[in-house]
Amino acid sequence: MFARLKNILIGTPLPTKQLAEKRLNKIRALAAFSPDALSSIAYANQEIYLGLLVAGSAGLGLAWPIGLAIIGILIIVAISYNQTVHAYPSGGGSYIVARANLGTLPGLIAAAALLLDYLLCAAVSLTAGVDAIASAFPVLIPYKTVIALGLLTLIMLANLRGLQETGTLMSIPVYLFLFTYIPMLVYGGIRLWIDGPTPLAVVAPPAVQPVTLFLLLHTFATGCTALTGIEAISNGVPAFKPPESNNAGRTLNTMAVLMGILFIGSIGLTQFIGIIARSQETILSALARHLLGSGPVYIVIQVATLLILAVAANTSFADFPRLSAILARDGFLPRQFTGLGDRLVFANGIVFLAIGTAVLIVVFGGNSHLLIPLFAIGAFLAFTLSQAGMVVHWIRERSRSWLVQALLNGLGALATATTLLVISISKFREGAWITVLLIPIVVGAFLRVRTHYKQVSKQLSLRGLPPDLKPTPPLRVVVPISGVHRGIIGAMDLAQSIAKDVTAVYVELEPGTGEQVLKEWKCWWPDVPLVILPSPFRSIIRPLLDYLDEDDRNHNDGTLAAVVLPEFIPARWWQALLHNQTTLMIRSALLYRRRTQGFQRIIIDVPYHLKK
Amino acid sequence: MFARLKNILIGTPLPTKQLAEKRLNKIRALAAFSPDALSSIAYANQEIYLGLLVAGSAGLGLAWPIGLAIIGILIIVAISYNQTVHAYPSGGGSYIVARANLGTLPGLIAAAALLLDYLLCAAVSLTAGVDAIASAFPVLIPYKTVIALGLLTLIMLANLRGLQETGTLMSIPVYLFLFTYIPMLVYGGIRLWIDGPTPLAVVAPPAVQPVTLFLLLHTFATGCTALTGIEAISNGVPAFKPPESNNAGRTLNTMAVLMGILFIGSIGLTQFIGIIARSQETILSALARHLLGSGPVYIVIQVATLLILAVAANTSFADFPRLSAILARDGFLPRQFTGLGDRLVFANGIVFLAIGTAVLIVVFGGNSHLLIPLFAIGAFLAFTLSQAGMVVHWIRERSRSWLVQALLNGLGALATATTLLVISISKFREGAWITVLLIPIVVGAFLRVRTHYKQVSKQLSLRGLPPDLKPTPPLRVVVPISGVHRGIIGAMDLAQSIAKDVTAVYVELEPGTGEQVLKEWKCWWPDVPLVILPSPFRSIIRPLLDYLDEDDRNHNDGTLAAVVLPEFIPARWWQALLHNQTTLMIRSALLYRRRTQGFQRIIIDVPYHLKK
Repeated sequence: MFARLKNILIGTPLPTKQLAEKRLNKIRALAAFSPDALSSIAYANQEIYLGLLVAGSAGLGLAWPIGLAIIGILIIVAISYNQTVHAYPSGGGSYIVARANLGTLPGLIAAAALLLDYLLCAAVSLTAGVDAIASAFPVLIPYKTVIALGLLTLIMLANLRGLQETGTLMSIPVYLFLFTYIPMLVYGGIRLWIDGPTPLAVVAPPAVQPVTLFLLLHTFATGCTALTGIEAISNGVPAFKPPESNNAGRTLNTMAVLMGILFIGSIGLTQFIGIIARSQETILSALARHLLGSGPVYIVIQVATLLILAVAANTSFADFPRLSAILARDGFLPRQFTGLGDRLVFANGIVFLAIGTAVLIVVFGGNSHLLIPLFAIGAFLAFTLSQAGMVVHWIRERSRSWLVQALLNGLGALATATTLLVISISKFREGAWITVLLIPIVVGAFLRVRTHYKQVSKQLSLRGLPPDLKPTPPLRVVVPISGVHRGIIGAMDLAQSIAKDVTAVYVELEPGTGEQVLKEWKCWWPDVPLVILPSPFRSIIRPLLDYLDEDDRNHNDGTLAAVVLPEFIPARWWQALLHNQTTLMIRSALLYRRRTQGFQRIIIDVPYHLKK
Repeated sequence: MFARLKNILIGTPLPTKQLAEKRLNKIRALAAFSPDALSSIAYANQEIYLGLLVAGSAGLGLAWPIGLAIIGILIIVAISYNQTVHAYPSGGGSYIVARANLGTLPGLIAAAALLLDYLLCAAVSLTAGVDAIASAFPVLIPYKTVIALGLLTLIMLANLRGLQETGTLMSIPVYLFLFTYIPMLVYGGIRLWIDGPTPLAVVAPPAVQPVTLFLLLHTFATGCTALTGIEAISNGVPAFKPPESNNAGRTLNTMAVLMGILFIGSIGLTQFIGIIARSQETILSALARHLLGSGPVYIVIQVATLLILAVAANTSFADFPRLSAILARDGFLPRQFTGLGDRLVFANGIVFLAIGTAVLIVVFGGNSHLLIPLFAIGAFLAFTLSQAGMVVHWIRERSRSWLVQALLNGLGALATATTLLVISISKFREGAWITVLLIPIVVGAFLRVRTHYKQVSKQLSLRGLPPDLKPTPPLRVVVPISGVHRGIIGAMDLAQSIAKDVTAVYVELEPGTGEQVLKEWKCWWPDVPLVILPSPFRSIIRPLLDYLDEDDRNHNDGTLAAVVLPEFIPARWWQALLHNQTTLMIRSALLYRRRTQGFQRIIIDVPYHLKK
């Protein structure tokens, strides 16, 4: 039943040898890796607008210069990452680059920063996407969290099916967005040219606070969330068809140009046409409604915005599992993250990301504005470390044009480090502190995990062990019985065949029954001692565990302790309900104590199959 | 943690020897066993009112004669059960009596009927109680189901704490109800005497259908739900303080008199004062509001009605677990129902009843009117069988006044059999068919369970088995390994010490790793064969199970098959997350196959404890 449902949702298992075939061409790769970058205009423009609105028309008039400053950083970062894509064709992005050139700790910091940012990207994109559709259909406003969680589930399932399918599914919304949004911006530009600009002073509400330096820096910082998706490609180079680096580089350039056009185009139109959003409406929805009316074309734009933002969350689903698999391979995360699932994807990473995103969405009430301050810090920290790493890389390599390359990456590192500082300080109190706190915690966990694996491998190593091991100590066996009947014969036979020291134990639930059991016992196994344990509180487990503990204390003779459990196996499943499941309970209790209290006994299950 | 929460909710465990102390005096016994009978006026009067209302004033005028007919049956049934209480001091009610005198099948039919009726009693009482309080506070109407489920949970917890505590907790509402309701009826009677009756024709809405014989019988049938609680005491005689029978008989008489007064008193006042209820209001609420206004006294009456109905559900919680324990002791229900819990109550029966009641409440949307048609059939079927059994009992015993006693019980059997017929026919289409269908299904299940236990005990019997058993066959052991390391040494040592035929198995998740493992293996265990299993779909379980199956087919030599599982036990719980839990998965798969496919292998768990 469960296996069938899984097959329907996720697809049938694929054999390992199909692994190499799952690669993306450029059209699909753009769809798979760019949505985060392209769609970020939705929340970045929204945050710039909200940040400046409080300062009235004087504030809103500063959107254009802030937008240009961000574009400047975009260009620097894009050039920087272009160099990375070619220098590191095997992928791995900031973690790989920082670790290789700056050392393990900077690498881990970059990795922690990126993992957190992927998580936040998924949460912010989904909530912002739902904001877009709720702007068009205000009736959906109360259901925003539920819609976001529904989309998240769909994306998770699509990713569990595998990357190729994901690429196909995801490319439609991306191109729908591009082919509706860019024409709209062109149309808006023509209208602006014909009609001339509207002064903001005419439409903007009065200022409630003056334009301060902090306000500007804060708005710039929130606007920088527009750049968060740009590193996705450098991390995912191996998913491209060969030649991987060239294809990845070209896709990166295309993406950066499209991103710049969308971002600065919509910022400019909003400011110079003088757009003001209604309550609960996004600024991009207000722009589209102003240009296109509330008709079908407007609806298509909003749906496309939702879809590309949903697909943007997918960027995280492409990169988070890949990065965590790399970290797990290096021993910094549990090994389960390296396991390829039935469909040749890192299924555990996908499921982990989905759960984390769902928690974020629920905790922050599906509100993208509250999530934004946590976001972008991770990305800019990773950018800075990666580019600083690239500088070291070029200096070490001393290839033909190493000085230019080092300078370009150095400029990138400087620009992103400055931005990081601005973001951390200006948004600290609103939530950035959470990210600042989490990154060292995650790095600490990485190191702890690594230490554990190292210790285990040292403990498990056979090196230095004498090949002639000492002989196995004799066994000492306890057999808990529920009475004298055929069901315990197999267990008793086995116990007697593997050990000389065998004791049977009977827990007396009803006072007085022990005597009769003992009498029968002596007829059948006169040589084996039977211990009757009283149970004043009618529990089977407690007296048995106490007895085993005492037995261990009494036998400090180097013997190996074992429990043989006779187990009834009914012929039909419903018959299991008719028995007390005592063996199951005893086994669970023994295993639990083993895990929690270092209980040493070997546990042996001997089945007795009931006939129909 | 869980144990602590359980202690807070349910109390600390009590030793078995305290069992005899848990008895009830008459005051507490009346509170524990009578609420069902006393409170049934709430829904019985409501159903009589609703049944007659459709026929307008002509219909409502027939409430009084119908009430008198029901009182007649009450008297007959009470006399009948008085005889039972004395003849069967060890309790057991209808099941015991019918089984002892009529045979096993009639006994089981009575038992099935009673169990269903206890379940329905709990559901009907809780929903009717919530109707009473929602009549006083209409704001609660949308939350009726939730409130009923909340009360159910409280009652379950109180019962899990134990009967003595339950008695104390429950006696307050019962006496609050009696000491508010009876004075109200007296006051109403005086007012009626002074003011004179109001003709129903003045107040009743116009008739929508004529008074037919079917309408009368149907109303009589629904009204008979008033009698459902009366057998509770006969079933619970052993819970009384000695002399059990005398105390139980007196309590039964007191209860019948109180029940008659409450029932006929409120029916009479409703009819002769001419009370008509508002929409969503119960008729008893309308009566109380008419007599007392909407002030605090009225509120107290409604709260008392809710409370006694909630306590009525408790009658089921006193009797259902007791009857199912008797049935389980006789082998007709799973043995778990005989198990006394930590607090010396039949905890499994209590929890089972609570779950069943919750399902009924949810499925019927918390609507008592929809549940009523399923109800009362069980009770009257059990009454009939029990009294027919008593007739046989007196005939067999031939004691001093056996003829009178047999005639009295015969009259009872006749009256209840007739009533049963009327109920089954007149309410069949509305839901009675569900009960009529369920009773034979439950009886079938009883017999199936009994057959299973008999077969098992035959299979388990050692009788006829030669005392000198044939020698244990040699073991054939398979050890699945995850690599060549210290963690498998213990398992290999044990395997080699208990068997000559040992094979190790390695599942090759990544193609090519097997060769290296094989090379290391040969250094350490040159004498033990290692089988490398390919795993094209990256599953560990599947290839292993296939191998074990093939191994079984290849060895049809009488050897005993065993799997030795080396198990990693990390020093701290969180470290378990860092390992693949492969042993856990393998063990679960083996156990599951054992249960479903008769898989025969012995399973041996050998721990390897990691140091900190």
